Amino acid sequence: MRPFIHEDFLLETKAASRLYHEYAEKMPIYDYHCHLPVRLIAEDTCFENLTQAWLKGDHYKWRAMRTNGIPEERITGSASDWEKFSAWAATVPYTLRNPLYHWTHLELKRYFGIDRLLGPETAERIYEACSDLLKTPEFSIRNLLRKMNVQVLCTTEDPLDSLEWHQRIQRDGFEIFVHTAWRPDKALAAENPAFSNQWLDGLQKVSGVEIRTYSNLLEALQKRHDEFHANGCRLSDYGLETVYAAPYTLREVESAFLKLRAGQTLNDKELLQYKSALLYDMAVMDARAGWVLQLHLGALRNTNSKIMKRLGADTGCDSIGDFEIARPLAAFLDRLNREDLLPRTILYNLNPRDNELMATMIGNFQDGSCPGKLQYGSAWWFLDQKDGIEKQIEALSNMGLLSRFVGMLTDSRSFLSFPRHEYFRRILCNILGSDVEKGLLPPDFDWLGRIVEDICFRNACRYFDMECQRRDS
Amino acid sequence: MRPFIHEDFLLETKAASRLYHEYAEKMPIYDYHCHLPVRLIAEDTCFENLTQAWLKGDHYKWRAMRTNGIPEERITGSASDWEKFSAWAATVPYTLRNPLYHWTHLELKRYFGIDRLLGPETAERIYEACSDLLKTPEFSIRNLLRKMNVQVLCTTEDPLDSLEWHQRIQRDGFEIFVHTAWRPDKALAAENPAFSNQWLDGLQKVSGVEIRTYSNLLEALQKRHDEFHANGCRLSDYGLETVYAAPYTLREVESAFLKLRAGQTLNDKELLQYKSALLYDMAVMDARAGWVLQLHLGALRNTNSKIMKRLGADTGCDSIGDFEIARPLAAFLDRLNREDLLPRTILYNLNPRDNELMATMIGNFQDGSCPGKLQYGSAWWFLDQKDGIEKQIEALSNMGLLSRFVGMLTDSRSFLSFPRHEYFRRILCNILGSDVEKGLLPPDFDWLGRIVEDICFRNACRYFDMECQRRDS
Amino acid sequence: MRPFIHEDFLLETKAASRLYHEYAEKMPIYDYHCHLPVRLIAEDTCFENLTQAWLKGDHYKWRAMRTNGIPEERITGSASDWEKFSAWAATVPYTLRNPLYHWTHLELKRYFGIDRLLGPETAERIYEACSDLLKTPEFSIRNLLRKMNVQVLCTTEDPLDSLEWHQRIQRDGFEIFVHTAWRPDKALAAENPAFSNQWLDGLQKVSGVEIRTYSNLLEALQKRHDEFHANGCRLSDYGLETVYAAPYTLREVESAFLKLRAGQTLNDKELLQYKSALLYDMAVMDARAGWVLQLHLGALRNTNSKIMKRLGADTGCDSIGDFEIARPLAAFLDRLNREDLLPRTILYNLNPRDNELMATMIGNFQDGSCPGKLQYGSAWWFLDQKDGIEKQIEALSNMGLLSRFVGMLTDSRSFLSFPRHEYFRRILCNILGSDVEKGLLPPDFDWLGRIVEDICFRNACRYFDMECQRRDS
Repeated sequence: MRPFIHEDFLLETKAASRLYHEYAEKMPIYDYHCHLPVRLIAEDTCFENLTQAWLKGDHYKWRAMRTNGIPEERITGSASDWEKFSAWAATVPYTLRNPLYHWTHLELKRYFGIDRLLGPETAERIYEACSDLLKTPEFSIRNLLRKMNVQVLCTTEDPLDSLEWHQRIQRDGFEIFVHTAWRPDKALAAENPAFSNQWLDGLQKVSGVEIRTYSNLLEALQKRHDEFHANGCRLSDYGLETVYAAPYTLREVESAFLKLRAGQTLNDKELLQYKSALLYDMAVMDARAGWVLQLHLGALRNTNSKIMKRLGADTGCDSIGDFEIARPLAAFLDRLNREDLLPRTILYNLNPRDNELMATMIGNFQDGSCPGKLQYGSAWWFLDQKDGIEKQIEALSNMGLLSRFVGMLTDSRSFLSFPRHEYFRRILCNILGSDVEKGLLPPDFDWLGRIVEDICFRNACRYFDMECQRRDS
Repeated sequence: MRPFIHEDFLLETKAASRLYHEYAEKMPIYDYHCHLPVRLIAEDTCFENLTQAWLKGDHYKWRAMRTNGIPEERITGSASDWEKFSAWAATVPYTLRNPLYHWTHLELKRYFGIDRLLGPETAERIYEACSDLLKTPEFSIRNLLRKMNVQVLCTTEDPLDSLEWHQRIQRDGFEIFVHTAWRPDKALAAENPAFSNQWLDGLQKVSGVEIRTYSNLLEALQKRHDEFHANGCRLSDYGLETVYAAPYTLREVESAFLKLRAGQTLNDKELLQYKSALLYDMAVMDARAGWVLQLHLGALRNTNSKIMKRLGADTGCDSIGDFEIARPLAAFLDRLNREDLLPRTILYNLNPRDNELMATMIGNFQDGSCPGKLQYGSAWWFLDQKDGIEKQIEALSNMGLLSRFVGMLTDSRSFLSFPRHEYFRRILCNILGSDVEKGLLPPDFDWLGRIVEDICFRNACRYFDMECQRRDS
Repeated sequence: MRPFIHEDFLLETKAASRLYHEYAEKMPIYDYHCHLPVRLIAEDTCFENLTQAWLKGDHYKWRAMRTNGIPEERITGSASDWEKFSAWAATVPYTLRNPLYHWTHLELKRYFGIDRLLGPETAERIYEACSDLLKTPEFSIRNLLRKMNVQVLCTTEDPLDSLEWHQRIQRDGFEIFVHTAWRPDKALAAENPAFSNQWLDGLQKVSGVEIRTYSNLLEALQKRHDEFHANGCRLSDYGLETVYAAPYTLREVESAFLKLRAGQTLNDKELLQYKSALLYDMAVMDARAGWVLQLHLGALRNTNSKIMKRLGADTGCDSIGDFEIARPLAAFLDRLNREDLLPRTILYNLNPRDNELMATMIGNFQDGSCPGKLQYGSAWWFLDQKDGIEKQIEALSNMGLLSRFVGMLTDSRSFLSFPRHEYFRRILCNILGSDVEKGLLPPDFDWLGRIVEDICFRNACRYFDMECQRRDS
């Protein structure tokens, strides 16, 4: 019997198969946004077992396990690694039609060569086989990346990060480019004065700038921005419910900041003005440095206060929100554009109801300075699955230029997630192939193949101003 | 020629046909939410003719007829039953691609064995044939339910309902389980003080609790809640534009209630606080009693004041609204969860743009206590059609666990609506079958078949804490 | 090799092909809403070249070119017509999967008989061939319309328009009916007092009514409305973010108007009340005159102030917004309906997330006075592509009666856009044909064919109260 993950997985037509195997498959991976812990790359260690590599920190799997009736003890609790794995294995057959089902088997196949389906009966054999392999040097962190033909990788760091691990990787001469991306979300998290001041104290320390005023804050952030730039960073990223773009005066913002710095709670207006100012000022830093700015909009985070208290953020209790997007986003982009300070920008939405809004918003500010200056970003998080990817591609195609798309990213916390690029590529080729078979596109494979390659790799190479060509090492 | 409703209607692949005929088809029906008039079940009478059974009270058909240019006289007016039927029959060919077209022919086939398509030419013969059958004992209300292999049925009652008909059915020893579900929407309808006080007077009377204060109200509701529980009720249901979850103090709510009870109109803030308190307190009653709580969100009701005045509510003038859903819903669920008082809950949305929001919201509060503690409910009302059902299944699959879904319900006011379960099952099997044919799922029919059966019947049996196993009668 | 635009383009099944070629194809075009410059029809001139006919004023193409990295100089700037065309030709291969790709080749084929694909290599030959043809009398404006079998055409004019060109066409005895449609958006644009007063001065002049009060304004508008009516107008059109339906008193509106007329800026409440009153009063004019009212909701316009300053409105910097639609729209329609002043109305949404909302909203107010009194309008602007059209048809089918749909319109500023009707018809037939092949519709081609013809032409003929039968000329 044909294995579940076979050569033409997801490829429903001959044209799709041709586009994938002749063009997409061989392109290296340019993963311009992920949440991998860079220390592990620097140290290049091995995972102890499959649970450590696969289940630790993967809140996608945690949610599925909770939904399947698995007690927390066996998810994030004190159960043994094997018990956790076996709870996950028992859940897998119940994840049918969820991307986890495909990802799981794609990852077992690509990293470990396993064709069996994971379930209660195969759990033990698979756990042992994979864990044994993971302990060998060929499965060290760096070798996991090499195995997937990764060429560029951008992790995501807070402005307080020392970037020491990135520097160490740089010094090492690791042939895969590992860059950092600037993620100053905590600077904007002014709802909680205690948390905010703690972070500002940290920034004060790492930047050497005493932060008493809003201007001091900008100075300190600029110092860190410069430092990130000096370390090769060319990319920022903001995770927001929606964009902040309220009118304000500098005096109002300075006064709000003094209040915040004094540990007082800002009212709604002050908060919005402060965030509007800071978001704008940070976007200006990005523009001046020639960086690409990313906006991830629409997540409703940390909804479950019980889990938040026990496990903290990013533990599987975030969902899709329904915020007003268009008006503030247009105002934000227009202000920057009017002042010739609009950076290359990638917009991501979490609620798919905003797909078309986003896909048309980028068109308002394209200025001919480069192809696809504004990008409608890849289907993200909950949308990173067949239906979500297809809909993002559909909206972008119909309302913008798919051909200029910078393509996929993993956004992942797991070193075993790189087959998501393959997943995306197969879906992309399947769409184009199906169009060819239906006569919606001419069967010009040279042309289509080139565009597939562009989307898989070359567009990102050209778009981001980062080192991406492999050294002769 | 093959009849329109044939064996493989809606089943496009061999795998789909196999899943439907070997697994789905034979499962009994667990209809956990409908609006059937329970008195008719108790009395077990016969319908006089097809108009009485099919057109009386079916606002889906009324809307279609109005759209088709039929004057109100022949819809809800004084025209004869035959005239009304003939107006409906003339409309049917114009309903192509509307679920009414499929439902109509599925109902004609399953209840009456009729293969002809309904239209002006066939109207008279079909009307007479069906009306003749309906008058026979084999087509009594209970026999209509038996014909469809219904095993459990939950009607929906106001807290003021005496439940006498349910008790009578219980005493009868009717082998189909007919349960009640608690629907206290009128308790929340505080916009209109006159209406509200009339209802509160009724509650006072039926509960024996004098209702002067908000605490009295809770006491009276709790008494009725207990009474419903004693009569086998394990399920509540709230129909809301969006969830109410504003902050309030008990003092504020008591004061708003006094004002309301004095016949005064509440302002927006008081109204929202009152509703937020009452919704929360009723959810707590559900949690304490171990009931399942259902939230039907997103309908904009009674938009046409002319029709409202003439015909009242539920007469075909409701539509899909665009309310803010995520933030208040998350706040409501989190508050209950924090206090360990979150009941098993089913969320339904009417605007399909909220599908993914809902499908991710449930994931935030799954706690491993049972599979699918929070459910993303079946496509509802306007969404109860092929496209709507497919999209609900798609969102649930991608963002939750389809395998743990409690499945379909009719939500209907008509005794001839039970083929909607068949309709749903065929669509479900078609989706899974198509996945198998495309290689998106492994062709393991034992596994897939078991999951199909679970979704059709067994998951609901396990999820709801109600009698559901057929007695040996 | 089969040309890209071939006989069965977009038709995936035999049933689709039959429905298109036997029914849809031969129907004349009833284009009840477009933005063609009527002067050109009156003068019946020829275009100088393909750039003049195709690229001047087509902001769809401009957006694509900007996205593709073409500098403004070669889009709307001082580059030569050939340079602009060649920039467009270089962009076309990058528009794959965008409707521009299909439209481009459909237009080249239908008007000029060209099968080659447009791109850098073919640009020059195609430019010359088309430009040569365009200069010949057979390609005059009127002959372009005749070539496409246009029978009725409604352009869109401001109340200040003298209608002189329409009158001239009328006098000419042009056998294609060219009507005007009333578009009083500028009357509602009260945000900017300077702009507003300039427009009001114009209205004063053209109507002969001195406009000092709100009542004067209504009187002046009514005069123009009557004048439009006398010139054959039976159709109004409003382009709004969302409907205005706030409560107001006449005194409040009069007072707001005095303020506006005095050049002062209205506050948010005054603005909304003024717009609510005026929109209602203009809808009443439409109702009394027996016109059809169109509402185009949901565009976020003129987002790019830099381009707005340089090029003005309608230059490619509008996008899809996310406004609250349901509540105000229902209130607006209900008020008119309650007073028996609800005109036949067509609702259009720009954000596809509102498709189902719109498709159900019309059902609330159908009153049986004619089939499809309220219409859910054709997929519009950014949605005027395969995916958008399919989704509009899907929503309308599932929630209303597709069979009563008045069908397609171009909404275009280009005389070469009429193949969009063909595009729509092929998609419609493809949907119905696919339903037949899947057994979702009975294969009754007489019935289906008649409904196809109705949607393509006859429903519009019956719905709009305008001359539409070709004279024996």
